[in-house]
Amino acid sequence: MSDIETLALACRDAAQAVAQLTTQRKNALLEAMAQALLDDEQAILAANAQDIEAARAKGIGSAMLDRLRLDAKRLAGIADALREVAALPDPVGLVTREETRPNGIVVQRVRVPLGMIAMIYEARPNVTADAAALCLKAGNGVILRGGSEAIHSNTAIAASLKRALREAGVPDAALTLVEDLRRETMLELLQLTDIVDLAIPRGGEGLIRFVAEHARVPVIKHYKGVCHQYVDAGADVQVALALLLDGKVSRPSACNALETLLVHAAIAAEFLPKAAELMRARGVELRGDERANEFLHATPATEDDYAAEFLDLVIAVRVVDSLDEAIAHIRKYGSDHTEVIVTRDEANAAKFIESLRSAVIMVNASSRFSDGGELGLGAEIGISTTRLHSYGPMGLEALTVERFVVRGAGQTRNLKLA
Amino acid sequence: MSDIETLALACRDAAQAVAQLTTQRKNALLEAMAQALLDDEQAILAANAQDIEAARAKGIGSAMLDRLRLDAKRLAGIADALREVAALPDPVGLVTREETRPNGIVVQRVRVPLGMIAMIYEARPNVTADAAALCLKAGNGVILRGGSEAIHSNTAIAASLKRALREAGVPDAALTLVEDLRRETMLELLQLTDIVDLAIPRGGEGLIRFVAEHARVPVIKHYKGVCHQYVDAGADVQVALALLLDGKVSRPSACNALETLLVHAAIAAEFLPKAAELMRARGVELRGDERANEFLHATPATEDDYAAEFLDLVIAVRVVDSLDEAIAHIRKYGSDHTEVIVTRDEANAAKFIESLRSAVIMVNASSRFSDGGELGLGAEIGISTTRLHSYGPMGLEALTVERFVVRGAGQTRNLKLA
Repeated sequence: MSDIETLALACRDAAQAVAQLTTQRKNALLEAMAQALLDDEQAILAANAQDIEAARAKGIGSAMLDRLRLDAKRLAGIADALREVAALPDPVGLVTREETRPNGIVVQRVRVPLGMIAMIYEARPNVTADAAALCLKAGNGVILRGGSEAIHSNTAIAASLKRALREAGVPDAALTLVEDLRRETMLELLQLTDIVDLAIPRGGEGLIRFVAEHARVPVIKHYKGVCHQYVDAGADVQVALALLLDGKVSRPSACNALETLLVHAAIAAEFLPKAAELMRARGVELRGDERANEFLHATPATEDDYAAEFLDLVIAVRVVDSLDEAIAHIRKYGSDHTEVIVTRDEANAAKFIESLRSAVIMVNASSRFSDGGELGLGAEIGISTTRLHSYGPMGLEALTVERFVVRGAGQTRNLKLA
Repeated sequence: MSDIETLALACRDAAQAVAQLTTQRKNALLEAMAQALLDDEQAILAANAQDIEAARAKGIGSAMLDRLRLDAKRLAGIADALREVAALPDPVGLVTREETRPNGIVVQRVRVPLGMIAMIYEARPNVTADAAALCLKAGNGVILRGGSEAIHSNTAIAASLKRALREAGVPDAALTLVEDLRRETMLELLQLTDIVDLAIPRGGEGLIRFVAEHARVPVIKHYKGVCHQYVDAGADVQVALALLLDGKVSRPSACNALETLLVHAAIAAEFLPKAAELMRARGVELRGDERANEFLHATPATEDDYAAEFLDLVIAVRVVDSLDEAIAHIRKYGSDHTEVIVTRDEANAAKFIESLRSAVIMVNASSRFSDGGELGLGAEIGISTTRLHSYGPMGLEALTVERFVVRGAGQTRNLKLA
């Protein structure tokens, strides 16, 4: 048996113990994990300093350095996040439905943990703690495979969290950090179909495609968020401007940021000059189609622009003659993530909802609400744009599945004792 | 583009039309499909006769011939099954949860179709109609790839159903039968990750393993059902005998039939002689461990027997000293399908439920109730022993997924207009 298989099997076995913990014990464990991080602040920040130094030596860019960097305040934030997960309702054991069948058997649907989850991620050390907390709270074991840039930070954080598990009497293999970062080891992990119940890759599109293409275990992922805002004829222009500002400017690197603005021709002359002024004042580059550029006087938009997740202060703009044309555009170029309609027409809103299969549809609300916390899930382990198991932001519940528990009084289906 | 990709793309496009049909139109369509089968009885039975003749010429066994054979009564049964699907509640559009967030946005979870489903199955021509009905009712497109033994029957049934689609104004590509049965064509279908949302293999373990091992698209499957019945100390012996009879004898070829009987030592002397008599009177071969054989005088059970899905009138029997030992046995040899406990002790029932992660747990009820119809799902598209998306028998709801629909009044997350 390979080393990674041995690790994964130990994690799966430990997961059985986690699955049976009471809510109270899980919450106490999460509190203890938060406290352990604070107690080990010095060691964790020292390990992080090693990662930062190595990253600098490799000439890694400032955005990535920032994602990698920890300080006392950020570590306290990570600990707080663990306490927030402790405060969330426990999905495990929840009876979602109950029915008494005509023969008297009582059929319940009950939430149970998925089992063992492999998180594959890049340079953010906070994912080590966040993902562990969510997986454990939902009764699962978790195997964590982070990026090499954060290996010292992740090792220190995992050591701290594992101590909290041991002190709580939980087998610490339930939280396993993979320290062997060779690509072939990750590939082997992703083939362990009898051990790993789900792999969740988080990071750039390259990593996610790599995991999706090589895994034999189930994978939940999203590649990119090409989110659209459609401004309907007769829309409230102030609302459309507010949603555009928040959607494009508040965090352009987020997957729920806007990438394309579609504007009905009937409102273009009123809306687009104001939109252009607002965007330019915030440093946003506009790329418009011919009709939009009558008002924008911007760079012409290309086919590639319509399919792009810019992750930057750039937006593609197109004028359409109808709601149908907007829907057709989104169907062609969209990524099934999040779409916004700004409208005062209920029927148009309903048609927009019914005609699009994206994970999240916003009517007169910002695309930036497409987030587990904002939508009421409490926390987010990832976002799925695959229409299986979970679609859109995934919280604790997405780390469980419903099964059947049936209680009878000796009922049989076909045969009876003579 | 290959032929199968062209077919799959057309099916996916047609699925968009199905996704938007009202419940009323879908139900009328299913009624029309049922009627079309009855109207085409002559053509379908003639096609089936061709399949039967070819199967006989190939020397195919009588059990498979029976699964393949259609007659007027069986065809009427298939048509009735379509009408039953029409009568089931429509999961599409169902608002499962609604919450108003502190900022006033209203967040709904709404069921939407999965999209396009590939059914891969063997010689049962009824699957062609059943699977099509369930997929369409849940708003999906379906691509059907049946076994070569049933190709004439399947072609005739699909032609009939497609006519009903066309007459209802639904693009008939929404129901697509693959007539090119080369294995490489199936493999290609299973790689179409951007087109096929889910593959469901139904048939023998060989077919299912082949699909699971070669698919890049998501697969929901179960390999086998090694179902256990544990008779606790102090159990009602009459109940234990009734559940054993129904579980083992009523349909031994079903995946929810019993394969292993675990008996607490404290009840073995009372229960096992009666169980042996009952089983032998029904022609069931017993294979016992040493302690069971004090009462059974049967063939010794091997390790292989404990892991086997006999699909026949054979049962393995083992005496255990405790509930814990029964749980450990099931964890070691089980297939996560269905387990039964016969007990009068609530605490033991609760421990059995919590300690096992099988898809269905029965307390004092027959394993044979582990079936979509019996559990209240109305009909069954398959059974999942993979803890993702759906776990246990899958009905219409398992052919949908929840997404988010959010309604606001211009709320933004981080930025406001000046």
